[in-house]
Amino acid sequence: MSLSVSVERVTRETFPVFADLVTALAEYENLAPPDAEARHRLEEDGLSDLPRYEAYLAWEGTKAVGYVTFFFTYSTFLALPTLYLEDIFVRPERRRMGVGRELFSFCINRAWESGCGRIEWQVLEWNVPAIRFYEALGAERIGWSVYRIVRPDLPS
Amino acid sequence: MSLSVSVERVTRETFPVFADLVTALAEYENLAPPDAEARHRLEEDGLSDLPRYEAYLAWEGTKAVGYVTFFFTYSTFLALPTLYLEDIFVRPERRRMGVGRELFSFCINRAWESGCGRIEWQVLEWNVPAIRFYEALGAERIGWSVYRIVRPDLPS
Repeated sequence: MSLSVSVERVTRETFPVFADLVTALAEYENLAPPDAEARHRLEEDGLSDLPRYEAYLAWEGTKAVGYVTFFFTYSTFLALPTLYLEDIFVRPERRRMGVGRELFSFCINRAWESGCGRIEWQVLEWNVPAIRFYEALGAERIGWSVYRIVRPDLPS
Repeated sequence: MSLSVSVERVTRETFPVFADLVTALAEYENLAPPDAEARHRLEEDGLSDLPRYEAYLAWEGTKAVGYVTFFFTYSTFLALPTLYLEDIFVRPERRRMGVGRELFSFCINRAWESGCGRIEWQVLEWNVPAIRFYEALGAERIGWSVYRIVRPDLPS
């Protein structure tokens, strides 16, 4: 079964729906979801005049069934921007119906029309369904490890 | 032996020195360096009013011995920006003299003063000297793999 969805940019009106889906993804990944203060920052950072990220919802009629967030990074070697996919999520009960593929195609179009040379993202090493999904789309795992330093007063 | 360096933002005047170091890093990593057209884009993208990345050189007197580039990404779960380190490079003959550490400290300061919650970067899995350097600084490898799709007309 395939679901027909429309992909729409998050607005002030749809922000609460979006924030709930961010929480659902964090829970799926066993990571800490945004708290009330973080939700407020998330809204300002995404909807200000110079947004720090772009967010889009996939709508099945009046029900939001998935979302994607991304921003533009930069490759100094290519000297081109990269579309960096931060989150892509489809509600568990709406999987395997083409919604993820629809959101992903939307990102590919945004990337090439914005002059990007690449799309990049990270996958949790244990998330086998996600890895299968990406490899079916023709994505390649590149041989880089991700390192991180967390601000000392924040939970790691 | 420890080297005293000053870290200065790249300007129109120092751009050619910076671009040569980007080429040196690409060669060290066995990756394609920017060609003439890419150097031109690199200059515009880094020095425009809304730069796509920030670049800094480490100077030992009048000789540039290293550089760093970064930009700000975003964590939707933290709802805070992340300083994302794209390149950090020290000329081979100037290694083990504290230059990398100086450049890295500079980035940490920029991150926390810009309100970031994290610093993140990627390391080539075979680059053991770099991995040792980062682990000595207290960085942790997180369990994420990097995936990529390259624009079809570009070399992968």
